[in-house]
Amino acid sequence: MVEENNPVNTVLERIRTEVRPLADGRVADYIPELAHADPNIFGIAAISAHGRRYVAGDVEGPFSVQSISKPFVYAIAVEEHGFDTVHDHVGAEPSGQPFNAISLDEHGRPANPMINAGAIVTTSLIKGEDRFERIRSMLSACAGRELSVNEDVYRSEAEAGHGNRALGHLCLAGGALVGPVEEAVQDYFRQCAVEVTVTDLAVMAATLASGGVNPVTGKRVLNRRTARHTLSIMAGCGMYDRAGEWGLRVGIPAKSGVSGGILAAAPGAFGIGVFSPPLDHAGNSVRGVAALERLSEDYDLHMLQLPTEPPSPLHSVSCHGGSLGVHLRGEIDFLAAEQVVSRLAAAVEDARITSVVVELERVSGFSDAARALLAAELTDLADAGIEATVSDPRGVQGAN
Amino acid sequence: MVEENNPVNTVLERIRTEVRPLADGRVADYIPELAHADPNIFGIAAISAHGRRYVAGDVEGPFSVQSISKPFVYAIAVEEHGFDTVHDHVGAEPSGQPFNAISLDEHGRPANPMINAGAIVTTSLIKGEDRFERIRSMLSACAGRELSVNEDVYRSEAEAGHGNRALGHLCLAGGALVGPVEEAVQDYFRQCAVEVTVTDLAVMAATLASGGVNPVTGKRVLNRRTARHTLSIMAGCGMYDRAGEWGLRVGIPAKSGVSGGILAAAPGAFGIGVFSPPLDHAGNSVRGVAALERLSEDYDLHMLQLPTEPPSPLHSVSCHGGSLGVHLRGEIDFLAAEQVVSRLAAAVEDARITSVVVELERVSGFSDAARALLAAELTDLADAGIEATVSDPRGVQGAN
Amino acid sequence: MVEENNPVNTVLERIRTEVRPLADGRVADYIPELAHADPNIFGIAAISAHGRRYVAGDVEGPFSVQSISKPFVYAIAVEEHGFDTVHDHVGAEPSGQPFNAISLDEHGRPANPMINAGAIVTTSLIKGEDRFERIRSMLSACAGRELSVNEDVYRSEAEAGHGNRALGHLCLAGGALVGPVEEAVQDYFRQCAVEVTVTDLAVMAATLASGGVNPVTGKRVLNRRTARHTLSIMAGCGMYDRAGEWGLRVGIPAKSGVSGGILAAAPGAFGIGVFSPPLDHAGNSVRGVAALERLSEDYDLHMLQLPTEPPSPLHSVSCHGGSLGVHLRGEIDFLAAEQVVSRLAAAVEDARITSVVVELERVSGFSDAARALLAAELTDLADAGIEATVSDPRGVQGAN
Amino acid sequence: MVEENNPVNTVLERIRTEVRPLADGRVADYIPELAHADPNIFGIAAISAHGRRYVAGDVEGPFSVQSISKPFVYAIAVEEHGFDTVHDHVGAEPSGQPFNAISLDEHGRPANPMINAGAIVTTSLIKGEDRFERIRSMLSACAGRELSVNEDVYRSEAEAGHGNRALGHLCLAGGALVGPVEEAVQDYFRQCAVEVTVTDLAVMAATLASGGVNPVTGKRVLNRRTARHTLSIMAGCGMYDRAGEWGLRVGIPAKSGVSGGILAAAPGAFGIGVFSPPLDHAGNSVRGVAALERLSEDYDLHMLQLPTEPPSPLHSVSCHGGSLGVHLRGEIDFLAAEQVVSRLAAAVEDARITSVVVELERVSGFSDAARALLAAELTDLADAGIEATVSDPRGVQGAN
Repeated sequence: MVEENNPVNTVLERIRTEVRPLADGRVADYIPELAHADPNIFGIAAISAHGRRYVAGDVEGPFSVQSISKPFVYAIAVEEHGFDTVHDHVGAEPSGQPFNAISLDEHGRPANPMINAGAIVTTSLIKGEDRFERIRSMLSACAGRELSVNEDVYRSEAEAGHGNRALGHLCLAGGALVGPVEEAVQDYFRQCAVEVTVTDLAVMAATLASGGVNPVTGKRVLNRRTARHTLSIMAGCGMYDRAGEWGLRVGIPAKSGVSGGILAAAPGAFGIGVFSPPLDHAGNSVRGVAALERLSEDYDLHMLQLPTEPPSPLHSVSCHGGSLGVHLRGEIDFLAAEQVVSRLAAAVEDARITSVVVELERVSGFSDAARALLAAELTDLADAGIEATVSDPRGVQGAN
Repeated sequence: MVEENNPVNTVLERIRTEVRPLADGRVADYIPELAHADPNIFGIAAISAHGRRYVAGDVEGPFSVQSISKPFVYAIAVEEHGFDTVHDHVGAEPSGQPFNAISLDEHGRPANPMINAGAIVTTSLIKGEDRFERIRSMLSACAGRELSVNEDVYRSEAEAGHGNRALGHLCLAGGALVGPVEEAVQDYFRQCAVEVTVTDLAVMAATLASGGVNPVTGKRVLNRRTARHTLSIMAGCGMYDRAGEWGLRVGIPAKSGVSGGILAAAPGAFGIGVFSPPLDHAGNSVRGVAALERLSEDYDLHMLQLPTEPPSPLHSVSCHGGSLGVHLRGEIDFLAAEQVVSRLAAAVEDARITSVVVELERVSGFSDAARALLAAELTDLADAGIEATVSDPRGVQGAN
Repeated sequence: MVEENNPVNTVLERIRTEVRPLADGRVADYIPELAHADPNIFGIAAISAHGRRYVAGDVEGPFSVQSISKPFVYAIAVEEHGFDTVHDHVGAEPSGQPFNAISLDEHGRPANPMINAGAIVTTSLIKGEDRFERIRSMLSACAGRELSVNEDVYRSEAEAGHGNRALGHLCLAGGALVGPVEEAVQDYFRQCAVEVTVTDLAVMAATLASGGVNPVTGKRVLNRRTARHTLSIMAGCGMYDRAGEWGLRVGIPAKSGVSGGILAAAPGAFGIGVFSPPLDHAGNSVRGVAALERLSEDYDLHMLQLPTEPPSPLHSVSCHGGSLGVHLRGEIDFLAAEQVVSRLAAAVEDARITSVVVELERVSGFSDAARALLAAELTDLADAGIEATVSDPRGVQGAN
Repeated sequence: MVEENNPVNTVLERIRTEVRPLADGRVADYIPELAHADPNIFGIAAISAHGRRYVAGDVEGPFSVQSISKPFVYAIAVEEHGFDTVHDHVGAEPSGQPFNAISLDEHGRPANPMINAGAIVTTSLIKGEDRFERIRSMLSACAGRELSVNEDVYRSEAEAGHGNRALGHLCLAGGALVGPVEEAVQDYFRQCAVEVTVTDLAVMAATLASGGVNPVTGKRVLNRRTARHTLSIMAGCGMYDRAGEWGLRVGIPAKSGVSGGILAAAPGAFGIGVFSPPLDHAGNSVRGVAALERLSEDYDLHMLQLPTEPPSPLHSVSCHGGSLGVHLRGEIDFLAAEQVVSRLAAAVEDARITSVVVELERVSGFSDAARALLAAELTDLADAGIEATVSDPRGVQGAN
């Protein structure tokens, strides 16, 4: 469902209008299918964490996903093998070099799973004979529809892909790649040739931004921790050798592909897709970078942008006789719990207080750390002779 | 004020106990003053965004701040010259190399302001004859007390600092450094020799984590945007050539120094300082890294960790006759505004609705983007023939 | 025919005795067949430009030639395609990196034909279905006996050779390698597995040192110019990343192999082979390097070692009446011709001289440049009115 | 004395005419004094090992020697400190990088004394307060006339030389450079600013080519071994990052400078100077490279070019009754002695031979190795019962 006549669409449309005149950049030409792309196509799509869809421009034309498949294949590998095993085979450092760089670290691992060598290794780690079908299926689950391979693009990549074969053999020699090189490389070519639309990119991004749950279909595709790892890798290594500048100016974990797409995932907020084929020297879509810079800047989506003030977890505090009532609200994380505990600890100093009630009716959830911290404080209060009780009519304290 | 007998202190103490047995690493020895450090000293301090202080272990012994001065000097340069001018002189990319690396980019700029070459350049950019006094004064404002130089450390660094002089001349040759090399290098040696305690590091970190306001003194030291830039640079380049792994495992913008300190700033939450002299191969404190990994892991401080669910800005929605009442709450940012707008837009579809009241009594603040988005929606409602009014008894809509 | 009881053998034996105690170095172990080598085996052989053979130590045990095959395969490629075409595919610069380095230059070429990548490229350039048979046959002609492949070594290399496959694909991607990667790599593995003795190495070296004629069999294997190119490449790139130091200390074009052999060709003088398996960090035989340093030092074999004074081409000069007789001797190259011309030109200044006879009876040969220079001078003499004749009873002037 | 109307001059003139139309390349502009150079100036000079001078084109205009001073300052350092000590401070490997590269090896040494860092280190090694005067004086002795500094060039270099100061500090930090950086750098700037003519370059080259004796003045400036070391370093590292190609195509040890000069020393034959300001990408004079390629090619000056056949040391062999007479000639080096010994050894097999006379009348000199080899053979003959005598009427056997 696209939201029509909506101010958010208006925002995307305005940014698209401002960025469209940028005529720099070159369409990638290393395989003919990419070289044929229309340089004027330009679309933006955003999916909110609540699953609402906003679009501007050309959002339905398909293109090959290319390197944007890499974070998702990394995520599959992490779920299959665990974080530590995957990182026995591939590093996590920005390489400071182009996407096709040959940079094995001192352990023989590719620098990270976002460069070609690292992506071929993570592909090789996925188990089973139906490896590619499982990759395609997971990408589809993230996009919320069945995706398929563009066979012409696949064949072109397979024919021209000697550099990637070289990387595969190198990683086999160094011990990072598992199993036959040619099979891994073929599946890598296939995953790069999966066709998507800008809207697909936005939904896929929103799935990462929402902790692994596709907010359109409501289905969990990845667990929360894997989603966090994937966002972290994108934040550090997603934009080729411009990761640092991207972190400063945009601050949204993202991954770009050589066909001209960028997928950007603002955690807990939006998934964004942009498509415009002309690329800058680093290999990132010129208009895509400009559009995301403006979105981040104008709508405060930078991940290190602070709220004006941290929301207080204290809805109200009341005192009747010797009884202190503390009404909490919202999501209680470690920082919020720290505030609550600090307030409760002050009660110990106040000789008039003999009992405390912590009221959770307006609380939406607890982190484990917050729950532990609050429990410890209640014990402390009891030790100090103050009767402490928790009122939890909706049962949020027990849920996770 | 240290919070005594507090569960948060207990957390820090537990982590300190677990990490203390780690006996790896070597105390830095490139100048004698560092080599004399006691490898057993180990302290942790945390300052909440509300200015409360938690400590464990050895937190009062002074040590030289070394490279931890770099993000603060970068911040001064950004405030004096503006972001763009500073980045004409220094890049923002992780270098993938050790701290003393010679890595000028294709524009003759050091890779980033966290490596020595980049830090000497940002020091050189600070204007005026009293340059060092202003650096010292700003570091003091961040720490909330007057800091001073350890003259022995300074002299040692100045005598042994031929590598840094080389970097200075190189940056002058490339056009990045401004003015006499020796003066810039001397002030760089002085800033590295400023003495701090673990608690100072935590307060300095909390100042960055709180958007530039020292939460202990309540004074604004940096503007919000500069604080964000500084955190971004730390996130990308703060942990020498282990930035990527740090981003994956810890996810808190941080900066380490060769004397054994680490400063970590969890935005909107905590400033943390750790000190333990033995360093790993990358030059980061072994126990400091381990302690921050546990803190991040156990207390969900990773910057890409999602809350269980995003808090709703809708406190309640009421409908009386044809009048829709929408009661908002908390901090309204772009994502929150998007939810509100989406709800209001649905009203247009409902033929029974003839008027809308948006109630702001429970709202703590608005971002500019949110304010604009809401205003646009109200205009849309009016265009659709629906009377829309905002009730803002506390005047939060106009404030910033 | 080995020269028995000969002072030259005594020289080799003395050097072998001095060098033998060196116990540094490690036997290569990247394939099991190399790891099994006896570290105590140590032999030296030398073949003079006249084909006489001198030996010391273990000179008959076979070992795989490994990288020492590279200069010979380069030579075949140059003869088949010409110098310029070969160097469209491979550079000529020392890489400053280990033998298995991945260093393609700005034209996509491996740095030089002595590193693995460059050697695989030169192998790929050799034409025809019987490629390997022709390589084997040419190596045999240089050694003066039929050489064959050690099949165990070949199989081991082929199984472990993923790094070399990677280099092959990389060079195919960059356009340097011709044809199917696997075929080129297989032939490369075969050429490395050809078995030789120390004496074979010395004869092969002598073939290069003698301008392409095997001085034992008397057969021309390469043309003179190809031999010079091959010696030049060995001089610049033959000793891995120790080429510069080798040039300073030894100054004999050489190539070493990972099995422990070194082939060294002192132009116009000796071909030398040394074999001792333990290798230094650069991958060169420890005893081999030491033996060749002593040979060069003690017997003035450094290619930039000057003779005490350059031999004079003037056997005698006589003057009878107005007739000047100039009797030349030896090999007349450009420098020698310059001396003769200078002497003849002086005759023009002498009014008494009316005729000149240049006597070539004692001359062994002329370079083209010398012949041209002398002819020009004779024309000049004629122009100056001096009758000039050449007496060439043995016809050396016309021969080449 | 320039040789007039001489065929060698004609050779140089012809090459100059052929090469002159090359219009590629750019005049260096890193200091204004170099940028003002006339790109059309082009001169060639050659000095034979016998001291005769040949010139073509513009050979008298002065220019600054720049990097061509480097091999000479290296030579001074070697004579003052010995080869091993100098190479404790500077390596001998081609760097594979541009002249101003920062490439310290694993011992903290610059890669070689021909890159700026290495040259500043060798300058710093020269002892004494009159360091620069001694450098100037030695360059003058090589040129055969008093050379002096162009003060404008010196001042320009000193003002712009921040990159070189950086290298100096870096080498001090790494332990390679001795003493105050600024003093070493100033003397380095001075030596680069020494003014020379093309003819000076040729004489300086001839001094190296003649084993350290200036063939014009007849004075020994360097000992033979130092000259060989210097030629070796030039052969490996003299032409910036084109050393390998130079070795293949030209094969004459050479050094180029950024002002457009090239000095080339063909051992035992010629010293050559060329000057033409426009430089190629590697920083070598375009016309200079082309001229030397032709000179080497047309006149067989490549150091690995073989004579058609090695000259025989046997002038004649006679046999009267049981007495064998062996008449030697020319310079007897190790290879020549090997031939003689081989011939004498054959005598032992011949039962008719009872005495041997070795006749040295036509011998011009003996190497130590040859003398030892011959003596050993004479002992062997005596042991075999053959009376062996040496006839040495001119006493060459004892001389060195």
